[in-house]
Amino acid sequence: MTFIERLKNSWEKKNSLVCVGLDTDLEKIPQHLKNLSKPVFEFNKAIIDATAEYISSIKANIPFYTAYGFMDELIETFQYIHESYPDMPVILDAKRNDIGNTAQMYAKEVFDIIGADAVTVNPYMGGDTLEPFTERVDKGVIVLCRTSNPGAKDLQDLIVNGKKVYQIVAEKVANEWNKNNNLLLVVGATYPGELKEIRDIVGNIPILLPGIGAQGGDVKAAMEVGLDSKKQGLIVHSARGIIYAGSDENFADAAAEETKKLRDEINKYR
Amino acid sequence: MTFIERLKNSWEKKNSLVCVGLDTDLEKIPQHLKNLSKPVFEFNKAIIDATAEYISSIKANIPFYTAYGFMDELIETFQYIHESYPDMPVILDAKRNDIGNTAQMYAKEVFDIIGADAVTVNPYMGGDTLEPFTERVDKGVIVLCRTSNPGAKDLQDLIVNGKKVYQIVAEKVANEWNKNNNLLLVVGATYPGELKEIRDIVGNIPILLPGIGAQGGDVKAAMEVGLDSKKQGLIVHSARGIIYAGSDENFADAAAEETKKLRDEINKYR
Repeated sequence: MTFIERLKNSWEKKNSLVCVGLDTDLEKIPQHLKNLSKPVFEFNKAIIDATAEYISSIKANIPFYTAYGFMDELIETFQYIHESYPDMPVILDAKRNDIGNTAQMYAKEVFDIIGADAVTVNPYMGGDTLEPFTERVDKGVIVLCRTSNPGAKDLQDLIVNGKKVYQIVAEKVANEWNKNNNLLLVVGATYPGELKEIRDIVGNIPILLPGIGAQGGDVKAAMEVGLDSKKQGLIVHSARGIIYAGSDENFADAAAEETKKLRDEINKYR
Repeated sequence: MTFIERLKNSWEKKNSLVCVGLDTDLEKIPQHLKNLSKPVFEFNKAIIDATAEYISSIKANIPFYTAYGFMDELIETFQYIHESYPDMPVILDAKRNDIGNTAQMYAKEVFDIIGADAVTVNPYMGGDTLEPFTERVDKGVIVLCRTSNPGAKDLQDLIVNGKKVYQIVAEKVANEWNKNNNLLLVVGATYPGELKEIRDIVGNIPILLPGIGAQGGDVKAAMEVGLDSKKQGLIVHSARGIIYAGSDENFADAAAEETKKLRDEINKYR
């Protein structure tokens, strides 16, 4: 099965669009875990076990691991998910991109060394730089389109023949770059107007939607415009709002509670 | 001293614009090194020692290390350069970028964990995403502008009010994003027309110029249009053309020979 097939199965089976984000910051995890030999892995494992029932995918943000030399704990986290929850799609947020022979190396890093099922990539360098990723037909390749930060306007909103750059990216993903049917997009939840335009362009191509919660994105507004024709199509990502919901020994229960709440809120608008 | 000051000193002192690229691929290094306990580090050390006399900077391409689990050998390579050649500016090619709190983590990864003096970054997400890098005022932040691959045209050449996207990136680097005077640009050597336009926009801001050699960039054409007003201003990068010049026990001598040749060819046109 391809990544997108697995993702769709997971949406159905779990009746959830929630993706929990393992932006695990050593400085923010509960004190009692910090003395363990693998504090980051133990934190992740507890969050995964507590939230698995309520989510349809998991995403980890690579620099939170590499910034502290915790690559091994990231790899171990992904192994744990594959073994314990084999149907769970696992996304690596890495925003990789480079020319041909270098992009090959990035594809090896994220898919073979780290074991991701899908990876986020940056489109600035053009369609040929995505091919070393997309030729891995069973993997998902998630292209940045319209991001959730204020500076997104600097380049993404520039107007080319009446169309914004992010609309052109969406068109290329839908009509030109998606030869292996394994592309997805990233669209920030903080801009529902843009999300609607992009959904109209890309049809049922899945969209990773960061920005719910800590970044201020509104669930109702995003659901009203972002769902696909099957009332699915969104990977609704929340990291800080879930994983740091509690800060003491009950952190995993607090995370589960927040995840369930988010799942139910999303499902109210489906 | 800042990265750019160190770079300028190195250009002067070495009378060279050459940057050797450590795109070290385990599969391509000489057979006799493969049985050593740190083959990649030993290869890099030999290349560095052999070419140091003829170069003014060194760049390593991170996925060539992470794709094989060789992060330790990359870090050791950078430590070796800092200790043995303390005036040598060391660039990490990583094309990183993300929103605020994640970009902070990338800055920690590249500057604190790996020990780079400068890093390449991708501008697609906008100016605010560069700040976690540029606030490290002693470091260099090298923004992708016009890349050397065919697909570069897909987004970078789109026309916005009569200007191409890469020209707008160059303008933002020159006039808006460079508050700490530590930005540089990446412009592929394969497009001298674009290089000229960008040089005209950015004045004496240093440009990293990949694409010489294996990718087909022409030295004479690039020098004629890319040098700054002091006949400097270019980090002329060559990787495969230098590091794989020889494939047997004389690989380091062959690399030195090619580096000297490239330095002299560049200097002919300065």
